[in-house]
Amino acid sequence: AALDKDVDYAQYFCTYSFLYHQKEMLSDRVRMDAYFNAIFENKRHFIGKTVLDVGTGSGILAIWSAQAGARKVYAVEATKMSEHARALVKANNLQDVVEVIEGSIEDISLPEKVDVIISEWMGYFLLRESMFDSVICARDRWLKPTGVIRVKFHRYPSHARMWMAPIRTGIIDHKVADYQSAMDDWHGFVDETKTCYGVDMSTLTNPFSEEQRKYYLQTSLWNNLHPHQVIGTAAIIKDIDCLTATVPEIEKVRSNFSLSITTDNMKLCGFGGWFDVHFRGRSEDPAEQEIELTTAPSVDYPTHWGQQVFLLHPPTHVGEGDDLSISFVMSRSKENHRLMEVELGCEIKQKSGKLLAPFKNKFYIE
Amino acid sequence: AALDKDVDYAQYFCTYSFLYHQKEMLSDRVRMDAYFNAIFENKRHFIGKTVLDVGTGSGILAIWSAQAGARKVYAVEATKMSEHARALVKANNLQDVVEVIEGSIEDISLPEKVDVIISEWMGYFLLRESMFDSVICARDRWLKPTGVIRVKFHRYPSHARMWMAPIRTGIIDHKVADYQSAMDDWHGFVDETKTCYGVDMSTLTNPFSEEQRKYYLQTSLWNNLHPHQVIGTAAIIKDIDCLTATVPEIEKVRSNFSLSITTDNMKLCGFGGWFDVHFRGRSEDPAEQEIELTTAPSVDYPTHWGQQVFLLHPPTHVGEGDDLSISFVMSRSKENHRLMEVELGCEIKQKSGKLLAPFKNKFYIE
Ligand SMILES: Nc1ncnc2c1ncn2[C@@H]1O[C@H](CSCC[C@H](N)C(=O)O)[C@@H](O)[C@H]1O
Ligand SMILES: Nc1ncnc2c1ncn2[C@@H]1O[C@H](CSCC[C@H](N)C(=O)O)[C@@H](O)[C@H]1O
Repeated sequence: AALDKDVDYAQYFCTYSFLYHQKEMLSDRVRMDAYFNAIFENKRHFIGKTVLDVGTGSGILAIWSAQAGARKVYAVEATKMSEHARALVKANNLQDVVEVIEGSIEDISLPEKVDVIISEWMGYFLLRESMFDSVICARDRWLKPTGVIRVKFHRYPSHARMWMAPIRTGIIDHKVADYQSAMDDWHGFVDETKTCYGVDMSTLTNPFSEEQRKYYLQTSLWNNLHPHQVIGTAAIIKDIDCLTATVPEIEKVRSNFSLSITTDNMKLCGFGGWFDVHFRGRSEDPAEQEIELTTAPSVDYPTHWGQQVFLLHPPTHVGEGDDLSISFVMSRSKENHRLMEVELGCEIKQKSGKLLAPFKNKFYIE
Repeated sequence: AALDKDVDYAQYFCTYSFLYHQKEMLSDRVRMDAYFNAIFENKRHFIGKTVLDVGTGSGILAIWSAQAGARKVYAVEATKMSEHARALVKANNLQDVVEVIEGSIEDISLPEKVDVIISEWMGYFLLRESMFDSVICARDRWLKPTGVIRVKFHRYPSHARMWMAPIRTGIIDHKVADYQSAMDDWHGFVDETKTCYGVDMSTLTNPFSEEQRKYYLQTSLWNNLHPHQVIGTAAIIKDIDCLTATVPEIEKVRSNFSLSITTDNMKLCGFGGWFDVHFRGRSEDPAEQEIELTTAPSVDYPTHWGQQVFLLHPPTHVGEGDDLSISFVMSRSKENHRLMEVELGCEIKQKSGKLLAPFKNKFYIE
């Protein structure tokens, strides 16, 4: 299905045209420190270089790149936020270095190829929003030709990983209660509609229940997990080399991995998903200072990304030493390529060797 | 600007494809009773007739029309809700009378013209959603030809009115506080970004303030006003005859009217807007039982439409006998024709004869 750009704008880009939303990202200290350090502790990669900032938003990464010594920075932004970015560049007296271009990266044209691409493209659980596609497009179109010049090309960040771990959480009880009260309410509604208005609605009970299940129990939740809520080992679902990744490789993420329960006598309430990214430069020309940005559960360094929680209903009893074999498939929603659907299969092998009945759940990242 | 149907679907129709949302409307007793009575107390208008239900949703009005004795009912629905409507029709054993057609009324074709059009098209403050356009289109395309047959054509509802009254409300203080705390937060953010990250954001203070003002103070609010909160007379902004209305007539609503304050020593905090509709049939063939559906402030009969509140900041002191001359202009938002923009001018003439400085405010119905 061809992408309708106007629909995409209405559904996706529009939120980025609010300063309020940009400010939320700009107030995320973990995020800011990571990019700030990645740039200023690796000035060598910026001094005298041409830089492309894919999705510049308020312009922050473009401005930092210029302050770190870039010769020229192209700051591309799809929304009207570009006007604020331009004002900000001017107010910080960098208008001779930073050129703000309004347009989507897929449509615009640059007068030259660049040495460095910088971008903050990560959505919830890394791939939500599918913005990495745009960075891949920028890389393939605007990096300098292979050979000597290609060596000079750096992608910031250079590596990205998706993680998953078993968790416990009280939310599950709330969600189940919410779902049940929605259903109680529905049953009262069916009775009333029959009595007062002579129409039998009971044939819609199943579809309504499905709709509510999807909403309360199958939609992944944004959450700031406490590390104590992680009750086992975390596994890498996917490791992406941003320098070589292709769209087919990230469009569908399939992975089988194992998790071990490390706490005894626990309820496995679901799984937490998060990501980290690294700024390593490339192997021929590594970063002087490798920077990591992680969105793992943390008390001191929470991020606006939080973690995505996938609830299990009902929770399963687990104990220390139990092993979980997970089969994970994440694909894009047919209705909106920026949202995701996850199929999560789980087989539990207890420490004793006993195998529990495997189960498979479907989730939506909306 | 031509309407992009896919964008319209993504922004508008999609919400109607959830049973949850249909149920909210179906649980509004005031709404349900009005349509139920309009149909069953005027069966003569339905018995043996052909009926078109514009935007049938769950199918409720089509089902009632059939139960009241219609020969044939065409139930048109743009979203996948049509499938649920079809199931409901079948479960209520009316599949021989009610034909559910999935499609937008602008696109579909009927095998015949109809005697009656029924529709529940009213949005917040009557015209939000601009769905009345679709009913006008249906009327002009699918009502029987003029002459004898035209006489048989009935529109349910037949009349609609927009109202406005001066109000007091505590919300204004909350909204002002929210706005101010957003700005305090912004100033802290600007300082921090300068100190920690070397970028001066102060040039964005004005645009941020405008954005937050719009959000907290200029966007009309859904509210269930208590009748005591109405501190003066209510006036009709606009009276629409659904049998003859045209799109240009509702696209832009201009009106000048007067309001009198009827309570002494009050703060005028803003204005409340609501609507009513009437089911009168047409003058040549009136309803046997005239039914009114009003969304005015009421303790016993609140509706899911509530009222729209337009806040004044700062509130003005008023007294009994003060007269307000209001100039009201409502037009459609350029970005989304289903949302509205309101310009509200107000001149206060005190009982003593003294004129206060007039003011004019802009509001958004989002
Ligand atoms: N294909 C595309 N072309 C241009 N801009 C895009 C894009 N896809 C996403 N964007 C923009 O990329 C931004 C991502 S948010 C990051 C903003 C900024 N770089 C910062 O780090 O604070 C949004 O402003 C969004 O509108
Ligand atoms: N142009 C159009 N063509 C077909 N359906 C439309 C339409 N504009 C709006 N609708 C549908 O009209 C419905 C309005 S809500 C009212 C639903 C139902 N008649 C009831 O009274 O409960 C929604 O389901 C919406 O999807």
